[in-house]
Amino acid sequence: MKLICDGLDLSDAVLKVSKALSVKAANPALEGIKIVAKGDSLTLTATDLELTIEKTIKADVLMEGETVVVGKYFVEFAKKLEKEQVELCRLDDGGLQIKYSESESELQVFPVENFPIIEKDGEGKKIELTESAFKEAVDKVIFSCSQDDSRPILKGVLFEIEDGLLTTVALDGFRMSVVKTDVVSEENFKAVIPSRTLQEITRLLDKDEDKITLVVQKNALFIEIENTRLYSRLIEGEFVKYGHIIPSTFSNKVTVNKDALLNSIERASIVAKNDRYNIVKFDVKEEVLSVSAKSEVGNVNENVNVNLSGKDITIAFNAKYIMDYLKSEKGEFITLFLNSPIDPCIIKAVGNERFLYLVLPVRINA
Amino acid sequence: MKLICDGLDLSDAVLKVSKALSVKAANPALEGIKIVAKGDSLTLTATDLELTIEKTIKADVLMEGETVVVGKYFVEFAKKLEKEQVELCRLDDGGLQIKYSESESELQVFPVENFPIIEKDGEGKKIELTESAFKEAVDKVIFSCSQDDSRPILKGVLFEIEDGLLTTVALDGFRMSVVKTDVVSEENFKAVIPSRTLQEITRLLDKDEDKITLVVQKNALFIEIENTRLYSRLIEGEFVKYGHIIPSTFSNKVTVNKDALLNSIERASIVAKNDRYNIVKFDVKEEVLSVSAKSEVGNVNENVNVNLSGKDITIAFNAKYIMDYLKSEKGEFITLFLNSPIDPCIIKAVGNERFLYLVLPVRINA
Repeated sequence: MKLICDGLDLSDAVLKVSKALSVKAANPALEGIKIVAKGDSLTLTATDLELTIEKTIKADVLMEGETVVVGKYFVEFAKKLEKEQVELCRLDDGGLQIKYSESESELQVFPVENFPIIEKDGEGKKIELTESAFKEAVDKVIFSCSQDDSRPILKGVLFEIEDGLLTTVALDGFRMSVVKTDVVSEENFKAVIPSRTLQEITRLLDKDEDKITLVVQKNALFIEIENTRLYSRLIEGEFVKYGHIIPSTFSNKVTVNKDALLNSIERASIVAKNDRYNIVKFDVKEEVLSVSAKSEVGNVNENVNVNLSGKDITIAFNAKYIMDYLKSEKGEFITLFLNSPIDPCIIKAVGNERFLYLVLPVRINA
Repeated sequence: MKLICDGLDLSDAVLKVSKALSVKAANPALEGIKIVAKGDSLTLTATDLELTIEKTIKADVLMEGETVVVGKYFVEFAKKLEKEQVELCRLDDGGLQIKYSESESELQVFPVENFPIIEKDGEGKKIELTESAFKEAVDKVIFSCSQDDSRPILKGVLFEIEDGLLTTVALDGFRMSVVKTDVVSEENFKAVIPSRTLQEITRLLDKDEDKITLVVQKNALFIEIENTRLYSRLIEGEFVKYGHIIPSTFSNKVTVNKDALLNSIERASIVAKNDRYNIVKFDVKEEVLSVSAKSEVGNVNENVNVNLSGKDITIAFNAKYIMDYLKSEKGEFITLFLNSPIDPCIIKAVGNERFLYLVLPVRINA
């Protein structure tokens, strides 16, 4: 294998694929980046078996071939070669020789046969949407994914496509986000995509109005963005039937300015988070919502004006769960839909039925 | 104690003094910020006994008095009150009441008598220089300070003033920085200032052309920058007689482009740092300096053009020590002054006699 390429192209490609590099894998080849020189291009691939990222750049290929170079060091090295023209050559004794200017260096390689063969089928059911719509559908739900390994299905986001409408859902047992987005799709289907994959996809997006196509296969997701191809395993299993969890009637509706509520909860959280449960209490009485929190370092009592329909109510939440939602919401006013201090609370922005947040209250002593 | 002040002023002041807050002190009051309301101002103080920072802001004082509020939480709280007018009031039961808009909160306080009394004498020997000159005198030496507690004197920077010339010196047993700067001073004296104090001072500086005055007392340093007063203990003891360490004659002089050398060492360091000693080897032969490094992950061999006066020489260094210097130097060309592979190397920028760097080589097998 021998090729010449531009250092900036190489550095960009190496950085992009490196997001899929394994750390301390049982198979050391998974800590490597596979390099394939063929035709007039160079293709780099990294994988941790769940997520695979591959990028192709232009190269002057003098001899076709392939190798797997030690990933972490190749990333650092390529970053320092951005201004150079770079020659990569697999030496007979096995190392990867890197030549630039008057200099030549060599990095350790792994046997190519130890690098896994990734299924790279680009066929499957398709959905098309703009980058900005995709980002919104992901950003508003991903914080509700579980971090806990005990139920792997909850570490992913449900993508449910029905008649041109994509519903994304994430939940962790304490709160749930549900977002609806218009998409172009010819088929109805469901898939659960790992939250890490979705994060890496959103990082690759920088052109809001461009359209992207997600290709969903039986066990995998495929997406291509500007010569970067990303393959991800889907999470197997049945997602929670989330529709059952959402109450359909409510006795209380509390409408409030989002920023005012967020500011008050942020201050309350400063003392609340000193406590294990980070509890803030809401006392709704006539036209005022009192936000309060208490711990050994102090107490906070804030009054926020609201519009209340229904009876007075006292209810408490984990401050983090409410703040996560309020930070992701762009609307000016939101409505809390409540039934009792122990029933789930639904939150929606006024005038936006497409983003629903559900959060369980925390039981406190009256 | 009762006062009203602007939230933005308060937040800025609390953030500045918080840099001197103790973490997990034996005396909990050291984790607090002292608040003194007197006349038409509010003074905040934090100290860890080595470093004390104090700031005064305007306030409408309704009742004079003082208290010590729990520092970490007050910092976070004040940050969230930037847009408010804030009323602070010490309650009879001891807490600090914080009122803003329609809300009121309370933070824990410590007994004022547990907060140490800091000597705040502004008298002493003075040196005056511009902020930019001070920053340069500090930034070029501070990275050579020792991190090691075994010789406390080496964790500070020597300030030596002689006839209007300030010499700053730091060394850690492996390398040394010496910088000369013109200052206005009526007396000759020496002081060793803790590196942490110097870092906090440089963070307070944002007007390059403004002049600052350092006041050096017997055991303390005092400086005032825009109503922020900083007091620091000096490090006691005799600093190393650094002049003896610097060789006066050299058999080899190697002049090289600084950026070219830095780029090569940075690449070499990628493979070298995988090894415990981070060793890069310099082979100077005629007009070429070969920079090389080797470890189990690979090897780097780079050639940099140089101007050599003297014999060919092979010498090795810890890459970090050379990179620290090269990153702090602004000149285009530098000269390495060498005697042998085991003697100290001196580095200076061409045309600048005011910044000298000394670094010990690493012995390697020929």
